[in-house]
Amino acid sequence: MNSTPTHRFVLAAVLCSALGALAHADEGMWPFNRAPKQQIQAKYGFDLTDTWLEHVQKSAVRISSGGSGSLVSPTGLVMTNHHVGSDMLEKLSTKEHDYIASGFHAATPAEEIQCPDIEMHVLWTIEDVTDKVLAGVKPGMSGAEANAAKRTARGQLEKDAKEKSGLHCETVELYQGGRYHLYSYKRYTDVRLVMAPEKGIAFFGGDPDNFEFPRFDLDMCFFRIYEGGKPLHPEHYLRWSKNGVRDNDLVFVAGHPGRTERLFTTEHLEYMRDFSYPLSMRTIWRREVQLATFMGRSEENRRIAEGDYFGIQNTRKARTGIFAGLMDPAIMDAKFAAEKKLRAAVDANPEWKKQWGDGWDMVSRARSTNREFAVRYAALGGGGMGLGGQLFGKAVTLARLAAEKEKPNGERLREFRDTNMEPLKLQLFSPAPIYTELEVENLTAGLQNMVELVGGNDATVKMVLSGKSPRARAEELVLGTKLLDVAERQRVFDGGLDAVKASKDPMIQLAAALDPEARALRKRFEDEVDAPEKLGYAKIAAASFAVNGENQYPDATFTLRLSYGTVKSYTENGKPVAPFTNFAGLYERADERGNKVPFELPSRWAKAKELVNLNTPFNFVSTCDIIGGNSGSPVVDKAGDVVGLIFDGNIQSLVLDIAYEEKEARAVSVDTRAIIESLRKVYGCNALADEIVGKNGG
Amino acid sequence: MNSTPTHRFVLAAVLCSALGALAHADEGMWPFNRAPKQQIQAKYGFDLTDTWLEHVQKSAVRISSGGSGSLVSPTGLVMTNHHVGSDMLEKLSTKEHDYIASGFHAATPAEEIQCPDIEMHVLWTIEDVTDKVLAGVKPGMSGAEANAAKRTARGQLEKDAKEKSGLHCETVELYQGGRYHLYSYKRYTDVRLVMAPEKGIAFFGGDPDNFEFPRFDLDMCFFRIYEGGKPLHPEHYLRWSKNGVRDNDLVFVAGHPGRTERLFTTEHLEYMRDFSYPLSMRTIWRREVQLATFMGRSEENRRIAEGDYFGIQNTRKARTGIFAGLMDPAIMDAKFAAEKKLRAAVDANPEWKKQWGDGWDMVSRARSTNREFAVRYAALGGGGMGLGGQLFGKAVTLARLAAEKEKPNGERLREFRDTNMEPLKLQLFSPAPIYTELEVENLTAGLQNMVELVGGNDATVKMVLSGKSPRARAEELVLGTKLLDVAERQRVFDGGLDAVKASKDPMIQLAAALDPEARALRKRFEDEVDAPEKLGYAKIAAASFAVNGENQYPDATFTLRLSYGTVKSYTENGKPVAPFTNFAGLYERADERGNKVPFELPSRWAKAKELVNLNTPFNFVSTCDIIGGNSGSPVVDKAGDVVGLIFDGNIQSLVLDIAYEEKEARAVSVDTRAIIESLRKVYGCNALADEIVGKNGG
Repeated sequence: MNSTPTHRFVLAAVLCSALGALAHADEGMWPFNRAPKQQIQAKYGFDLTDTWLEHVQKSAVRISSGGSGSLVSPTGLVMTNHHVGSDMLEKLSTKEHDYIASGFHAATPAEEIQCPDIEMHVLWTIEDVTDKVLAGVKPGMSGAEANAAKRTARGQLEKDAKEKSGLHCETVELYQGGRYHLYSYKRYTDVRLVMAPEKGIAFFGGDPDNFEFPRFDLDMCFFRIYEGGKPLHPEHYLRWSKNGVRDNDLVFVAGHPGRTERLFTTEHLEYMRDFSYPLSMRTIWRREVQLATFMGRSEENRRIAEGDYFGIQNTRKARTGIFAGLMDPAIMDAKFAAEKKLRAAVDANPEWKKQWGDGWDMVSRARSTNREFAVRYAALGGGGMGLGGQLFGKAVTLARLAAEKEKPNGERLREFRDTNMEPLKLQLFSPAPIYTELEVENLTAGLQNMVELVGGNDATVKMVLSGKSPRARAEELVLGTKLLDVAERQRVFDGGLDAVKASKDPMIQLAAALDPEARALRKRFEDEVDAPEKLGYAKIAAASFAVNGENQYPDATFTLRLSYGTVKSYTENGKPVAPFTNFAGLYERADERGNKVPFELPSRWAKAKELVNLNTPFNFVSTCDIIGGNSGSPVVDKAGDVVGLIFDGNIQSLVLDIAYEEKEARAVSVDTRAIIESLRKVYGCNALADEIVGKNGG
Repeated sequence: MNSTPTHRFVLAAVLCSALGALAHADEGMWPFNRAPKQQIQAKYGFDLTDTWLEHVQKSAVRISSGGSGSLVSPTGLVMTNHHVGSDMLEKLSTKEHDYIASGFHAATPAEEIQCPDIEMHVLWTIEDVTDKVLAGVKPGMSGAEANAAKRTARGQLEKDAKEKSGLHCETVELYQGGRYHLYSYKRYTDVRLVMAPEKGIAFFGGDPDNFEFPRFDLDMCFFRIYEGGKPLHPEHYLRWSKNGVRDNDLVFVAGHPGRTERLFTTEHLEYMRDFSYPLSMRTIWRREVQLATFMGRSEENRRIAEGDYFGIQNTRKARTGIFAGLMDPAIMDAKFAAEKKLRAAVDANPEWKKQWGDGWDMVSRARSTNREFAVRYAALGGGGMGLGGQLFGKAVTLARLAAEKEKPNGERLREFRDTNMEPLKLQLFSPAPIYTELEVENLTAGLQNMVELVGGNDATVKMVLSGKSPRARAEELVLGTKLLDVAERQRVFDGGLDAVKASKDPMIQLAAALDPEARALRKRFEDEVDAPEKLGYAKIAAASFAVNGENQYPDATFTLRLSYGTVKSYTENGKPVAPFTNFAGLYERADERGNKVPFELPSRWAKAKELVNLNTPFNFVSTCDIIGGNSGSPVVDKAGDVVGLIFDGNIQSLVLDIAYEEKEARAVSVDTRAIIESLRKVYGCNALADEIVGKNGG
């Protein structure tokens, strides 16, 4: 709020590194089967029981659009963030009903709207299958061979587990390849929208206040899971805390952090700083500018592109923070020191040195190889061949799927294996609206990006553009394809390889024509970069376990993790920042910024000023170790009751991607008391509030 | 207005190329000593007399901030665009008086505000000095030697001419080195602000409508030139047209197009497409995103950065259009064809082939050389070592100037020669405000850009960052320097090399430390790229003159040029676009976009709706050949009277940078009738309106 740009990224000198730094800090995104019981007992005197862990685990929800949530009622109500649900809100909106702008509330169950293509997963069991995955990996195998052996083993394990349990099963690679666990989920696809506030309050302050604190966002959204056409009655759901959280309270976050790079070697981090971040940031900046331009042209353009725009802005701001961390010697020096210490310990033990000493060089070589073709790979849309736009994405899925279905399950590209077929079909046949103008815009951007990265004289570029400018070609493809029609997608899907080969659809023809080179690059990445690098990281992980003990957490993998910490103030530019904001602060902030977009209060909120209790806590911060993907995670107290809803980290927290820090970095949550107060006083959703607070009152 | 993104950049198939394409199209930015008299006589039956040319030439004004203008009253009134004058408006504004937002009007001469650092030039004479410049260039000389010989000759010519005439003299390199002309200017530095409207109407529609048509912008601004403390009584000034312009009228534009690349070889254009544009666009996108973020943080941030932001948005939009043209096979194919034809003509003549046949290869080799170090050169801020921020720029000027002043005039870097000393001092000692927070922001961006381009382990980067993150280092430099104080700049300036060497100012120390490498890169660019390339282009120009005759115009060089054409409608997406808009359309457009920023009408305009004549023409388009730098140019009719004020081109005109097109590309002007109607009815500036219309009425 009163923050200046100065000193933003000047982090505290004491930075912890994931490898080997334990116990004292509130550090770690812990798998539920490796929960940090000892540390929490030691630091907070709290006993993290298996019962507590099971209850929280089975109340937590993973959302396919890339966020977290939690079950919060006996009738399947799921709480998450507005910005996690907004993808659905956008798909359910029309030119006439813009739920993003106006919000939504189903007054009766009949009014709850079914979502077109969302999945929710609840983690049921975890099993360590490291030995089984690595059983086929023999000494002397190349990276590619080891990769193939692991892929086959993982495919088989997933298939067998699914057949046995009926659950959705995934093998998860942890510690950059140091361990493999099998995660089994209950999977739900009948999900209905219950309530969402206006974006104006959910994302009050917009991009300027994003990742900032103090903050005043009601970033919440409620869905309901249905099973067999009726509301789910879950085995576990979180009770609503009666009194809420206070300063210095111990709290936990159960969510799905997407990706961190804390175990990366320093050379790998330098590769990010000097090569991959400059490469990806330029694409992010161009997308942000181009989408802003597109949106400026009309009100309808704004509506249809707003979701993409928010996503890119959020990514940009998050990566800017990580990028700044990579450029900060304070962080990098700590990384160098930790690595030096570990390598010295390995070198000092001849057996360790022989087994693991070359791990760092293996990573180094893999990065050198990646650098040779990473630009070209990016130009062709990466592993998913995502050049731009949904229609081209669907054409790629159809073209690749037809080819992959001809192969045995274990040899297919990961996303086309049997266990992934249902999620794939959910996306492929989604009836969600696709807007032609936005498709042209997004595909044009992708085609221009291709020219920029590899040059206009490149043979592939010439083939793709077919003698036209990027925009003219994008128009030809988007206006010429029939894939806007779900039935046509189904027809090509059913027709398999023959239908793809015979297709006259220009989008499918392009996808099929580009596939061989894109696929070859992907294979090269998997065999020559990813596979040997994983072998190297497995060695480093083994060394770290040997030197520092088993009690370490793996990098984030968009799987369920437990973080912990306390509600805690911090200092910014020499001034203390209080851990809670309240409703009064919201009205002050709107006033201070002239009530102008993005600080404009929705009319319901302007009117409710006299009705609400202005002392109601709104947002609060804690030291919990979170990252992107944690959005929508419940914050629970020692009783396992929900007290908050994670929606952001402050700007100082962005470096958590590469290193934990607790002096200034904070997770930011909506206070559950703000949720109830606004449901009752601002939105008049008393039935929903009653359902949520249940027997606990509140 | 009703344009969709589709077909925007699909240009007409018939594209003209500057080299050799003459007469039929309204093509060309003609030097006043090579005015296209014959073409205009042939196509329009109009006799372009020397009297007419002299009158228009001496009424035209070049503005140092990068735009054009014209004298429009007997008492030194200069008309230009708001977006040309906005740099001054910003410098004259304070937190309390924001002239950008509220506009400005001096009711009496005493209220006219003196500008801190603007220059206005009026072109007085032109002389062809090609032979004198090339006299010292001997066969067999290397590019660097030829460059040195030309530099010495040009320095001497400028110095002699200045001593003789007392005018400001510049030798201008035309046809990429094919000809050299000596331009002598009357130079004025006492310039005062008279009137500016609100940015809300000057730039109505903002970025979304920038480079679009239909358009409704009152993009005007009035200054007055003073001499000896009194208003200038110029020998020439443009009279105000009594009746204004009509559809299909022949019109002329006298202004200062900044830079075009129409004579470039196809390989040079491919270099732009595949290398230099991707490199510069990424910097532009990042700056736009970063400035938007900075501005979002507070109202004051918005105010102080708005000028930078507008500039970068405008550059981005313009270059996006050029970039799209470079990616358009229709344009490139026409270029290939023209080049092939010229080369065939040269090859067919043994003497020509011997003299000029290697011109294209020389350009090609120069580009290859440039590619070797262009990224590093860009990382170090290019030729001006402009890393970011005004303070660092001033430190560079001081450090380099001290070193350059030790050398003979002819051997100095161009901007430090005696003839350029006055403009340099005007900038260096400008009392215009410098904002610390924006300085930190801009320098941080430059330092981050450096890391991105050459990597964090680079020795120069390490030296520059001095063990700190880019932001921490930028803060240290900006907060540590004393250069915010004009007196301190004067002190270092007076102290010369000793003062620089002894300086403890961190900004000066950094500038001095970085200078050797930056200077070496610049020298390499000048000697190994620019010089041999110019020799190559001189050959190509000579070949073109031999094959196509002398009647060709050179690429733009921010010197005075004459363009011509007619007021003319065009077709966009199959629909006709009328050549004029009117006041009624402005009110409709504001209404259609909900009167929201950037379509929000200033309150004066909202109130004036009942007072103004809604049929008053507002903006109009013509086929005149213009480009960036032409902003603020007068549009004059056959009588030499002013009928319009150039402020933009439509989106289809952006490719004019590399090729002329007249089917869809249009120059966009404010109609002089809109200027008078709004001065009288909206702003109540009757005295100013009376001064402008003078005896002509209107």
